[in-house]
Amino acid sequence: MEREHFSRQYDEELNTIRERLLEMGGKVELMINDALKSLVERDSAMAERVIAFDHEINRLEMEIDERCLQVLALRQPAARDLRFITLALKIVTDLERIGDQCRNIGKRAKELNEEPPLKPYIDLPRMALHAGTMVKEALDAFVRGDADLALKVCRDDNFVDNLNEQIQRELLTYMIGDVAAISRAMKINHISKCLERIADHATNVAEMVIFMVKGKDIRHTAV
Amino acid sequence: MEREHFSRQYDEELNTIRERLLEMGGKVELMINDALKSLVERDSAMAERVIAFDHEINRLEMEIDERCLQVLALRQPAARDLRFITLALKIVTDLERIGDQCRNIGKRAKELNEEPPLKPYIDLPRMALHAGTMVKEALDAFVRGDADLALKVCRDDNFVDNLNEQIQRELLTYMIGDVAAISRAMKINHISKCLERIADHATNVAEMVIFMVKGKDIRHTAV
Repeated sequence: MEREHFSRQYDEELNTIRERLLEMGGKVELMINDALKSLVERDSAMAERVIAFDHEINRLEMEIDERCLQVLALRQPAARDLRFITLALKIVTDLERIGDQCRNIGKRAKELNEEPPLKPYIDLPRMALHAGTMVKEALDAFVRGDADLALKVCRDDNFVDNLNEQIQRELLTYMIGDVAAISRAMKINHISKCLERIADHATNVAEMVIFMVKGKDIRHTAV
Repeated sequence: MEREHFSRQYDEELNTIRERLLEMGGKVELMINDALKSLVERDSAMAERVIAFDHEINRLEMEIDERCLQVLALRQPAARDLRFITLALKIVTDLERIGDQCRNIGKRAKELNEEPPLKPYIDLPRMALHAGTMVKEALDAFVRGDADLALKVCRDDNFVDNLNEQIQRELLTYMIGDVAAISRAMKINHISKCLERIADHATNVAEMVIFMVKGKDIRHTAV
């Protein structure tokens, strides 16, 4: 009975970590969405909210870290649970840095909103949508232990990389055609790179999930 | 006697993790140095070596991860040791991503080496030197548990950030002045951002060290 009680509490602790990670992922996904919206709709108040929201992501990072340490210290998890906890520790860092990137996008959006628009934003929102989905799917793959879904995330990264390169080429054309466009083009370029980094973080998470599930490290082999 | 034997072996395991991390840090520092050298001295063969060397960094990441998991599974470390191991797991990820940034610099260097030089590189090597020192000092702070040194690293990040901004402003002037310079300026800009990211990784490590030593999370408060 004692033992059963212990085990139920332990399961709950692991579940809480899982839930908090999903909560953090959901919030980060929303941040990506809002950061882009603040750019496309030229809404600087929304950009401000995105920048301020980074605190909430940081708070969640510290909370989840602490929960993982508690479980490691008090429950001495083995095998599967141990991999889950150590991965959670790494994943939470990736999520926090995605939050940082969203804050960076918010800052650039605010600057861009003060100048006349250079061009309609078509590819950046597409990139953001994909990057957000990658973050969501990478976390789903983690909590479900779904290697196939994680593999899909790794493959999707190519799409975001290609969009980033396409945007960069296009901006180059703008810059060559009009000197007055250069400063704005550099800022848009920065946002594109932030989105690429967000997709990279999601890919890192997915690669770690595949390692967790298959016990095989594909992090540094071609997918 | 049995117990003493156990404890000596355990200490050795922790020491090995410490040594491997320092080894990885030393190799990463060398990579930063060589990546910049391949640019400044227009040595594309060296750039190739930097790109290829990333494999060695990835191998070390996997080895250290595995060692940490072993200690967590078999030794059930508590308190201080537990924080050390969980931090090692996070730090190794930062080091690996610094390796990725060096590979990116190597790729851009190769491209730039095929075109006429845009300008002498003055600030980029300074930035690289600082970023490399930050990586070294962050790791030293980790293995020594030296919060003061870690705090210095956090402060040094401002210097690298300022250099990056200065380089970006300068490149903007080049681009506005000469359309033919834009493509090369964008590549130099990319290298500058890679170095900034390397310094960010070192800062992340340093912030985690301060947390480990002081038990206080300064990751998300102003330094």
